[in-house]
Amino acid sequence: MGVIKTTIGDYLLKRIKELGIDTIFGVPGDFNMKFLDLIEDDPDLVWGNNANELNAAYAADGYARVKGAGCVVTTFGVGELSATNGIAGSYSEMVPVIHIVGTPKTSSQASGAILHHTLGNGDFNVFMNMFASITAAHVHLTSTEAARQIDTVINESMRRRRPGYIGIPIDIIGDEIEVEDNPLSYAVPKNPADVQAAAIKAIMDLIHQAKNPIVIADACVQRNHLEKELHAFLQTSGFPSFVAPMGKGTIDPVTPGFRGCFSGAVSLPQILEEVKQADLVLQFGAVLTDFNTGGFTGVLDRGNVVSLHTFATYVQYSNYEGVGMKELVPLLTAQFPATARRSVQTYEQKWGPRAIRPPAQPGTGMIQDYFWEVANKYMAANAIIVVETGTVEFASINFDGPPGASFISQVMWGSIGFSLPAALGAAIADRSRRVYLLVGDGSFQLTAQEVSVMLHHGVTPVILLFNNDGYVIEKMIHGPTRKYNDFQMWNYAKSFDYFGADLPVNQSRAVAPFKIGVHERVTTRADFDKAMAQTNQQPDCIHFLELIFPRDDVPQEVLLQTATSENK
Amino acid sequence: MGVIKTTIGDYLLKRIKELGIDTIFGVPGDFNMKFLDLIEDDPDLVWGNNANELNAAYAADGYARVKGAGCVVTTFGVGELSATNGIAGSYSEMVPVIHIVGTPKTSSQASGAILHHTLGNGDFNVFMNMFASITAAHVHLTSTEAARQIDTVINESMRRRRPGYIGIPIDIIGDEIEVEDNPLSYAVPKNPADVQAAAIKAIMDLIHQAKNPIVIADACVQRNHLEKELHAFLQTSGFPSFVAPMGKGTIDPVTPGFRGCFSGAVSLPQILEEVKQADLVLQFGAVLTDFNTGGFTGVLDRGNVVSLHTFATYVQYSNYEGVGMKELVPLLTAQFPATARRSVQTYEQKWGPRAIRPPAQPGTGMIQDYFWEVANKYMAANAIIVVETGTVEFASINFDGPPGASFISQVMWGSIGFSLPAALGAAIADRSRRVYLLVGDGSFQLTAQEVSVMLHHGVTPVILLFNNDGYVIEKMIHGPTRKYNDFQMWNYAKSFDYFGADLPVNQSRAVAPFKIGVHERVTTRADFDKAMAQTNQQPDCIHFLELIFPRDDVPQEVLLQTATSENK
Repeated sequence: MGVIKTTIGDYLLKRIKELGIDTIFGVPGDFNMKFLDLIEDDPDLVWGNNANELNAAYAADGYARVKGAGCVVTTFGVGELSATNGIAGSYSEMVPVIHIVGTPKTSSQASGAILHHTLGNGDFNVFMNMFASITAAHVHLTSTEAARQIDTVINESMRRRRPGYIGIPIDIIGDEIEVEDNPLSYAVPKNPADVQAAAIKAIMDLIHQAKNPIVIADACVQRNHLEKELHAFLQTSGFPSFVAPMGKGTIDPVTPGFRGCFSGAVSLPQILEEVKQADLVLQFGAVLTDFNTGGFTGVLDRGNVVSLHTFATYVQYSNYEGVGMKELVPLLTAQFPATARRSVQTYEQKWGPRAIRPPAQPGTGMIQDYFWEVANKYMAANAIIVVETGTVEFASINFDGPPGASFISQVMWGSIGFSLPAALGAAIADRSRRVYLLVGDGSFQLTAQEVSVMLHHGVTPVILLFNNDGYVIEKMIHGPTRKYNDFQMWNYAKSFDYFGADLPVNQSRAVAPFKIGVHERVTTRADFDKAMAQTNQQPDCIHFLELIFPRDDVPQEVLLQTATSENK
Repeated sequence: MGVIKTTIGDYLLKRIKELGIDTIFGVPGDFNMKFLDLIEDDPDLVWGNNANELNAAYAADGYARVKGAGCVVTTFGVGELSATNGIAGSYSEMVPVIHIVGTPKTSSQASGAILHHTLGNGDFNVFMNMFASITAAHVHLTSTEAARQIDTVINESMRRRRPGYIGIPIDIIGDEIEVEDNPLSYAVPKNPADVQAAAIKAIMDLIHQAKNPIVIADACVQRNHLEKELHAFLQTSGFPSFVAPMGKGTIDPVTPGFRGCFSGAVSLPQILEEVKQADLVLQFGAVLTDFNTGGFTGVLDRGNVVSLHTFATYVQYSNYEGVGMKELVPLLTAQFPATARRSVQTYEQKWGPRAIRPPAQPGTGMIQDYFWEVANKYMAANAIIVVETGTVEFASINFDGPPGASFISQVMWGSIGFSLPAALGAAIADRSRRVYLLVGDGSFQLTAQEVSVMLHHGVTPVILLFNNDGYVIEKMIHGPTRKYNDFQMWNYAKSFDYFGADLPVNQSRAVAPFKIGVHERVTTRADFDKAMAQTNQQPDCIHFLELIFPRDDVPQEVLLQTATSENK
């Protein structure tokens, strides 16, 4: 406690580090380099060194999903605007990423100087204003108000789980300020006690009455980091549980009573039936977007639903405003009446073992069904599985991953190209967990250069590129024979070579030394088995498997999902 | 004339084609594919097939600089936001690019559906509103007003030489409409006759009085396509002429009386002296940004200046509002008094031959001075030279290019990564002219995937990658030994291989067959001479020369420009 002297730049980094951030992503520019000096000189920080700003924003998002918060630094105008799609994605998907933008010096802004990286109209707020609707808070720091401004943006961003925007003029980075030496508190406001008590009573009444209560866990469990609290509730209640596509990984598949992924008409038939027969559904952190609900076929009758959200609780048709799940879930567990406890065994006697996707047709060639059937067994426990939008994501809903796996994807925002940089960010965020990147060939092309940044950081993901020669997901929705759904094929398996794995200078500059494992095209199941085994034997290597699938190899899940599209 | 029946989608494409556009850049998405059907089915249109949306926007910009207008199609949210930096660049640099965004169907928008590619808040205008400040006009088409809306955006965009934004809901693309069958007129309003007459008189008075009148041509000559009219004025007046960095290419260097590039303190000493001694400077289309004026050292005393702009004319301290250069320049030529005519010979007797940059130090290794000295002679006449922001752009100011050369760069917006996709766009825009892309290694990495799209279109640029191992321009401004100014080195010379030049499927899908020429690392002057000779012998091939320069090889022009930076 007490007052300390610091500088605006150092204070900003202090607040960033309080979020648990140890790596800051971004690209240098002449308006941010003085800030990058502080990052480079800080022994507790690593510079992301991304190939472009969109990739950097995606990486910060992937990092934030593992660490709780992320940070990206860009330069005025050209840099920040390249990051807009990434920041909007973090907003849509509720991921707190602090976007720091180096801006021109205060006097240039005040005089409306016709600088490079401007529109030439003297307006220095125009870009920040573009970010206003895709951030929880935004600000251009001023010399006198900087500390308060920084705290406000970070607070809003963390509480609302959305990005924040901080512009820092290059000339005030070193300005000295005096601040209170205490950490920020990002705690969400306490739930209103009386409203919460009423909500708990209403929920417990429904639980007592229910014959077939179930739980469906969704994205906001992960966003609020409530996996453990949810697990405790499941253990206490004995309720069978499902996940939504965006909630994959929030319930460990080895949890007793776990029944798989529910996504309306896209679900496995038995799963759909089980959810249909439930007369009470506790939805934890549901996000009812089209792709998270089988094209809205999975939106349930509110009369049967209790829906716990970050800032509200819905019990049937009533909204208990301000009752957030973070405080509520442990209370539900603590107050759960023993008389209402259910038996997983009883449920299983009725329904049998949980539904799983049918096995692949026999054969030797690589097909997606084979991948989704066997990949689990080759993946390291507690893996982080980053799944790209499109065919791979839709196909993955019935894929559990290994025990303890987390999933990262953009079911809602759905920006192709996100997964590769996000995998970089996730791999940096936790080097103790192996990252598996599942990405289609079309999506890979948007952000491919970030493979080089993976080498630079010496991270060890297993890159699984699904090469089905085209935007297959688009073909399934519209234009299956259209030329616009095909594009130039690359020699993807040569990525490590192209991105400089053999150049000694890259080793000497790497954040951590990199080692190359598998990098090859895989066309047969036998080759896949062998290559995956090798990835396990070489946990200290980065691997690249270009999996060659037939052009028309589309798993059932994808057929079902695209059948719901309104854009055919 | 008369009324015709058409559809909203076809009408939009009719207007796009009226702009002279035959290639539309972009990336497919589920909200735009029905519009792409129309493009693919139109025998007069080619689909750009870009690797990502930022690259597509850059390509449309490069195309527009050659053709007069460009077009890029993206999908709602994720696609359009990736293009923001490109569109903002077109705004800053005054390039009309029509950005068409495929959006969700009208009923989903009206109901605020929680669709993918949204923020989840039911706001379907949020992204368009972000484009409001970086476009001349923006609109979401409606079924009943579409034709008028389309005409308004295109008209505003073409008149103001800025981008325009058109959102088209997927369900109204095929809606039938009745429209007048007449082309749009994009003519700028006539200059007010009385104001113009007064301006001409004031200018002629100054011309009569001037002892040392000169002309400096700048960006807006190119943006208004007034090169021929300027040439006529120079021939008639006999005034010696200069270009600003943004105006390079607007005066053919073989023009009698051409004296080189003026950029304030960054100019060659003799050029600086010549401009200093002028007592009347006619500035044609000047854009007085920092990097176009040697960090404002080239901003001249208004008492000596007549400045012709797109929508105004400044004579010393007076503004003749509404008097645009397009109409004014031919009048100045036509009314130029014979008595005021100057002699180029007299000027040359006084000043001697025009200043040129000093020759390179002797040696065998490749250095930038050698490149800038000899590259001209290997370049095809009428080339389009695309110059990346940074070291290459600053170094190029005293580089003429071959006779008839045009230059494309972003002196004002300065977004690194722009040049590679812009070169693609320029090469498609005019296949009769050879494109030379001059790009640094750092900038190349941001948008490298567009090399594969160059192959797909079978264009034949000569890619000259300046590999000086790092963001050298940033090092010159700040942090010369900072790690953030270094990054992973790639095997750039293997680009054609990585991007699939050897894969037969790519030839079968190419817009035009591609042929590969030089693709190698160049470290000596002899190798450079040989490789450039080969590019001339193979005009039907695409070439990639990775030019290896010493890390500290910084030409004098760059030293002078970075010395003016306020961000050191």
